[in-house]
Amino acid sequence: MTSLERSLIIQALEEDTGRGDPTTAATIDSSIEGKAYFLAKASGVLAGIDIAKEVFVLFAAQSHRENLVRFRSVGKEGSHVSAGEPLDEIYAPLDAILTAERVALNLLQRMSGIATLTREYVKRVQGTNAKILDTRKTAPLLRPFDRYGVLCGGGTNNRYSLAEMILVKDNHVAANGMDIRQVLDKLKKYFEADAHPLIPVEIEVTSLEQFRIILDHGGNIVSRVMFDNFEIGKLREGMAMNAGTFETEASGGVNLHSVRAIAETGVDYISVGALTHSVTGLDISLEIDHVPV
Amino acid sequence: MTSLERSLIIQALEEDTGRGDPTTAATIDSSIEGKAYFLAKASGVLAGIDIAKEVFVLFAAQSHRENLVRFRSVGKEGSHVSAGEPLDEIYAPLDAILTAERVALNLLQRMSGIATLTREYVKRVQGTNAKILDTRKTAPLLRPFDRYGVLCGGGTNNRYSLAEMILVKDNHVAANGMDIRQVLDKLKKYFEADAHPLIPVEIEVTSLEQFRIILDHGGNIVSRVMFDNFEIGKLREGMAMNAGTFETEASGGVNLHSVRAIAETGVDYISVGALTHSVTGLDISLEIDHVPV
Amino acid sequence: MTSLERSLIIQALEEDTGRGDPTTAATIDSSIEGKAYFLAKASGVLAGIDIAKEVFVLFAAQSHRENLVRFRSVGKEGSHVSAGEPLDEIYAPLDAILTAERVALNLLQRMSGIATLTREYVKRVQGTNAKILDTRKTAPLLRPFDRYGVLCGGGTNNRYSLAEMILVKDNHVAANGMDIRQVLDKLKKYFEADAHPLIPVEIEVTSLEQFRIILDHGGNIVSRVMFDNFEIGKLREGMAMNAGTFETEASGGVNLHSVRAIAETGVDYISVGALTHSVTGLDISLEIDHVPV
Amino acid sequence: MTSLERSLIIQALEEDTGRGDPTTAATIDSSIEGKAYFLAKASGVLAGIDIAKEVFVLFAAQSHRENLVRFRSVGKEGSHVSAGEPLDEIYAPLDAILTAERVALNLLQRMSGIATLTREYVKRVQGTNAKILDTRKTAPLLRPFDRYGVLCGGGTNNRYSLAEMILVKDNHVAANGMDIRQVLDKLKKYFEADAHPLIPVEIEVTSLEQFRIILDHGGNIVSRVMFDNFEIGKLREGMAMNAGTFETEASGGVNLHSVRAIAETGVDYISVGALTHSVTGLDISLEIDHVPV
Amino acid sequence: MTSLERSLIIQALEEDTGRGDPTTAATIDSSIEGKAYFLAKASGVLAGIDIAKEVFVLFAAQSHRENLVRFRSVGKEGSHVSAGEPLDEIYAPLDAILTAERVALNLLQRMSGIATLTREYVKRVQGTNAKILDTRKTAPLLRPFDRYGVLCGGGTNNRYSLAEMILVKDNHVAANGMDIRQVLDKLKKYFEADAHPLIPVEIEVTSLEQFRIILDHGGNIVSRVMFDNFEIGKLREGMAMNAGTFETEASGGVNLHSVRAIAETGVDYISVGALTHSVTGLDISLEIDHVPV
Amino acid sequence: MTSLERSLIIQALEEDTGRGDPTTAATIDSSIEGKAYFLAKASGVLAGIDIAKEVFVLFAAQSHRENLVRFRSVGKEGSHVSAGEPLDEIYAPLDAILTAERVALNLLQRMSGIATLTREYVKRVQGTNAKILDTRKTAPLLRPFDRYGVLCGGGTNNRYSLAEMILVKDNHVAANGMDIRQVLDKLKKYFEADAHPLIPVEIEVTSLEQFRIILDHGGNIVSRVMFDNFEIGKLREGMAMNAGTFETEASGGVNLHSVRAIAETGVDYISVGALTHSVTGLDISLEIDHVPV
Repeated sequence: MTSLERSLIIQALEEDTGRGDPTTAATIDSSIEGKAYFLAKASGVLAGIDIAKEVFVLFAAQSHRENLVRFRSVGKEGSHVSAGEPLDEIYAPLDAILTAERVALNLLQRMSGIATLTREYVKRVQGTNAKILDTRKTAPLLRPFDRYGVLCGGGTNNRYSLAEMILVKDNHVAANGMDIRQVLDKLKKYFEADAHPLIPVEIEVTSLEQFRIILDHGGNIVSRVMFDNFEIGKLREGMAMNAGTFETEASGGVNLHSVRAIAETGVDYISVGALTHSVTGLDISLEIDHVPV
Repeated sequence: MTSLERSLIIQALEEDTGRGDPTTAATIDSSIEGKAYFLAKASGVLAGIDIAKEVFVLFAAQSHRENLVRFRSVGKEGSHVSAGEPLDEIYAPLDAILTAERVALNLLQRMSGIATLTREYVKRVQGTNAKILDTRKTAPLLRPFDRYGVLCGGGTNNRYSLAEMILVKDNHVAANGMDIRQVLDKLKKYFEADAHPLIPVEIEVTSLEQFRIILDHGGNIVSRVMFDNFEIGKLREGMAMNAGTFETEASGGVNLHSVRAIAETGVDYISVGALTHSVTGLDISLEIDHVPV
Repeated sequence: MTSLERSLIIQALEEDTGRGDPTTAATIDSSIEGKAYFLAKASGVLAGIDIAKEVFVLFAAQSHRENLVRFRSVGKEGSHVSAGEPLDEIYAPLDAILTAERVALNLLQRMSGIATLTREYVKRVQGTNAKILDTRKTAPLLRPFDRYGVLCGGGTNNRYSLAEMILVKDNHVAANGMDIRQVLDKLKKYFEADAHPLIPVEIEVTSLEQFRIILDHGGNIVSRVMFDNFEIGKLREGMAMNAGTFETEASGGVNLHSVRAIAETGVDYISVGALTHSVTGLDISLEIDHVPV
Repeated sequence: MTSLERSLIIQALEEDTGRGDPTTAATIDSSIEGKAYFLAKASGVLAGIDIAKEVFVLFAAQSHRENLVRFRSVGKEGSHVSAGEPLDEIYAPLDAILTAERVALNLLQRMSGIATLTREYVKRVQGTNAKILDTRKTAPLLRPFDRYGVLCGGGTNNRYSLAEMILVKDNHVAANGMDIRQVLDKLKKYFEADAHPLIPVEIEVTSLEQFRIILDHGGNIVSRVMFDNFEIGKLREGMAMNAGTFETEASGGVNLHSVRAIAETGVDYISVGALTHSVTGLDISLEIDHVPV
Repeated sequence: MTSLERSLIIQALEEDTGRGDPTTAATIDSSIEGKAYFLAKASGVLAGIDIAKEVFVLFAAQSHRENLVRFRSVGKEGSHVSAGEPLDEIYAPLDAILTAERVALNLLQRMSGIATLTREYVKRVQGTNAKILDTRKTAPLLRPFDRYGVLCGGGTNNRYSLAEMILVKDNHVAANGMDIRQVLDKLKKYFEADAHPLIPVEIEVTSLEQFRIILDHGGNIVSRVMFDNFEIGKLREGMAMNAGTFETEASGGVNLHSVRAIAETGVDYISVGALTHSVTGLDISLEIDHVPV
Repeated sequence: MTSLERSLIIQALEEDTGRGDPTTAATIDSSIEGKAYFLAKASGVLAGIDIAKEVFVLFAAQSHRENLVRFRSVGKEGSHVSAGEPLDEIYAPLDAILTAERVALNLLQRMSGIATLTREYVKRVQGTNAKILDTRKTAPLLRPFDRYGVLCGGGTNNRYSLAEMILVKDNHVAANGMDIRQVLDKLKKYFEADAHPLIPVEIEVTSLEQFRIILDHGGNIVSRVMFDNFEIGKLREGMAMNAGTFETEASGGVNLHSVRAIAETGVDYISVGALTHSVTGLDISLEIDHVPV
């Protein structure tokens, strides 16, 4: 787990528990030890169980009790879980379990929901070369978790943020009344004149004519081409023209019904915004064992 | 807009744009003025348009250009928008529009998606007294935005975090082998002995027997009772027993099909986790006008 | 203790100890164990002893020695202490005790001073229904501690910040040349049109005429009325007009001499700015036992 | 104003206004311009008027309206103000004035209260050489403001935190069963062996015997001696023994009645914890002019 | 400029100016306008002039005066400057120029020093294919600035931090008593089993035997090989064996005398720790024009 | 170690390791215990070994494993180390050693490089009264570490930031067309009129005429005079004129060749910007012992 992820968890605990938990304070003696386990209440792909457990450690650390938190691992990140299947166990002070539970579940359910949907897409393209890519359409502030859900589902991560790759979209092209050819010149100048670091360049095309220009002039600059909203026939034609020259990516109009046909054109990557912009959380609960004391 | 909301927006900009945007740097001259407008691509309830606009102001402020950002307001928070309907316009440096666009849309689509689903629930219970409540099952760190989406949809906000209300669930009751009666005593002691501030108390019941105990002994302490996973018949019976004594809330098993029948029992509040834990973003895009310069 | 309180303590330690403590570095060997106890040097009400102890834990945690800090609890929050009475004991590395002492005492003395004064007010109104309320006139940044002092003294906490309650004062009324009636209309519109969450509304009145308007038109909106700077006679008249309709609060000109008469009018709450804006710290010291080693 | 002070003001605004101000949102149109002025309601010494004004600028900056805030300066830091005297004027959006008012007043009243009490002490010692010193008994987190209040009252600031000066107290001496002579040796070693920076050294003595040891052996190391809780006679004797060798400071048992006699012994500094640990805020209000619009 | 860079500048201003600048406060009237210009006092490569100017903007923004700061640009990032050459001009309040000057110069001198040394290395390898790479041996916290200096000098940036590339060094290999072959297996498993994102992999070799193993078995996994501390002859042999299969990098024992011979072996990259771990600042001053007022 | 230093280390770890270390994740099992030792690869003065060790503790604390980190101390801060000399040993989880190593070495090498150069200067002035002073020409954000390197080398620390001392340079003098005499008047007014705290005052002079003015009029105000860029003869003359009246400091044109002659004039302090603005890191490595497991 990275320190960014840890600091986001701490901030999420702050949001929900930072002003105190009077319910637990009023009803639970802080000396009671608790035992609980995650329970899958629907079938899907597990993602984020280690992060969910760290929530309890980081919460307990606020009262210097992190050494009282122990786990028994059962579920494996990325594995399939069935409704009714018991998952990892937690041993910790009962008040800490009750107070931190919601933050842990909110993270776990979202990540597992993302993994579950990603797995659906990955299954549909099985046997082709296509990889399922995520996009920057993540929940703001939760990007590392959303991306991890995609990985657990068998998807592939795209650039983390705007900085890791140049991706020229039609808005960048049209901005100055430029065409693709002029954009390629701009990019060449950018790398030459200002000694910028060599990061990968992808360009979005909306027609085969645009793609032809890149084939003719983009060789030194472009590493991947994004075919946006192409019909299957046109996309197949594009793959033939490309013949392995550039990496290729299809985007737009991708859903569980259309994805197989797109993959069979031979495209390398298919990016799917819905993986993260419309998430149905996987139903997982935390069951608490009550031992009379 | 609160300073918490502003600081979350700044953090979201940091996540996506904090290491720079080489695409825009390479292709867009920073002196070009841009014009853009939001466009509804699906029908639903608008929520967060003011927050989306503030994203551009806060991003431009990083380069001391916030005074170059202007808007023309069209859409109204909470109003219905139709697919194809143009919404608010933005006038700002083109590079700022292109770099900050994704953060603005990610927030706006999520909030509007929440508002749209909330409105569906609100419509179903029209004519009854029931109010649709959100829960703490929000995307971590995004709670103020998720709650605002619920408000725009016509829903009612529940407690912000654990601190604003005592809500005793079955886990709190069962923890020490206690029953409801003993919990009421614990709460009384909590308020008396330690001079804690008087915040509202809600107790979850899972049977009419438990509710009877609260009717008999909870008068001074309890302000609301949550009926968790009650059948409609039992819930109606509960309302009759209550006869206006406490505020009442139904939870569990609530969906668009069941919500009307629940509301017709006369319950005051119906809490719906799905409003925020499984969000389908409303499709809204940002269209950029390209004026040859 | 909430995470906000913890982070304020860490910031207070930073202020006083963050650049090092050369005195202790030069004179105290870091391997010496220390023992100390708090000593009441004046009589009053104890508040903040648990917070004062946490100061030592959080300071020791900076050098990974929090597990060397132990306590023996003696005093109870909110209890009366007499001059000369020994309070809780601390066992910790001597250098940590000496370096963190001042921050602990500064917090403890202020909170106990607040509790002591609050208790005086509470005693004066004993036998009436009136509760003593604090105000937002706290030391900036110390509000959670100041409020806790009030609670320990037997007082009742008002809204935490501007956000938790609407409180319309004469400035809000006069701002647009509005009168109370128009303000009530504005509030109604506010709640209806924009789907804002239902938070309590209190309105300040400075005459019985204003109060009459609220009695006639404020029923659905207002939950509490603040009578500002009323003479006792007028205030009693107001209570009679009210006859239990709204919660009532008296403010202005409240001191230890006047508070009883105010309470006997039957008002529900009396708010006292002096509880926190003019604090005489309760004299408590930290005595260090010196065992020859 | 330093950036530390600015960031503390922003944090104080966050505490009181960070979750929004629904009262102002409901009642005040954000386009109304406001005018207000500070009004002294008691006589005393003004301190912090510039800081109070910056509160409004920093609050307005959150909504990018800081250029709408203007002032007319009237009062001068450190000057005497009389009850009823109007002070600086503010021109700003009315909603900003109403929302930020409390934070501004809380700071101004505390600083002016400190300045007023400090001035009392300074007056009592007029004609002697003694300077009135503050201590580290400030409100946690507010030290820069508390110290500024002392300066405005004519007092002198002591070390900012533990780091700027070595001050050996009896606890440091007794810690290891050491005596003063051994402490002097420890200090010498500290400076020699570890190449620590040369910061001033002050040592507390509780008897003339201890002082004699410093006179005989402390020459190269000590720059100031603190006489703690000395009777006037003994203190005068100490001054005679000293004959200008070290700077001298009296502490303990200092109040408005005793301070003159202490000063007349010829001591250089008198430190007074009460300046900041028990503050009576100076009553200053913000009066808002209501111009019908 | 990224928001990370901006926030580091603000932190650097805090370090040097955060507690105030009494010198300027005592001597300079805040209403005086100032004019100044950077002056190269030694010859070298300019880097960071835009960052140095932003220092003044960000400092002035603390007192809401950023709109009073103007520049006339002269020098170009990455261009050669000669001793005595005047560079960019600043127009700003004089007190802001004097207070922020040192932070601006400290950054500018370091970055320009890095660029100047980098340019020396780049010149030595001119006509070969070798690129000069920086390393992670940067000044802690200043990495973005150090890397920018390298770019301006004509060098190429390596991975930003540990996260962007896998670089297996001999310590990773030897850790478990593994050999290179086993490491390749571990990497394969890492990518397969846990669905990690595909980031580039580089492996360090210290002998041609190790390199042979990678040639035979690393094809799918490895993208670059680092030849650490190879003699020229062995390195040339390695290039022949490689025949374009992998990207190649030489490291260890690189200095201005040895770099040419290394480059002539045909290696693709030469990494040079000294670019950033031992920096001689380029002497640049800020000259202030004094116009009698 | 101060909390500022700790927080800078944490920030440096964030910079290099905050997004994870996939190399170590892929190759090193987290249960392997590691052992390593620092090794001097060049001769010089050791500085920062305690800080370098704390890097590993703070990194391990992120995964709650700080109790697994142990050291055997060998080297002493400020002592001379020879090439080939083994230094302190570390026992910690191997993955933590490998991930945190670079941050630790980057700090240690820089501090030791500073100490080594400082020691050279200190040796040259041995037998004179002159002390070697550092300046504010430190690497931004690393000032506490740079200053500590100077101390370990036997140098003396100057003011920490702009706030701790008034230092009037020629720019402050010339700003208003003032001369030194007028500046002295301004300073007097500053201290009198606004009750500012008494901090030391140093004034830079560039001629003996200016110095004469200070001798005649600066007695109550000035504590130190800086002779900037004086020839040796003139500087000696200045020392004679001064005859112990003020502390004296020489600056400008100081290098290892010139420093002795400057010191022999009898000047008290010689400030050397090069100590920190042009640092050659001392070559120290971390050697990892590989025990077959």
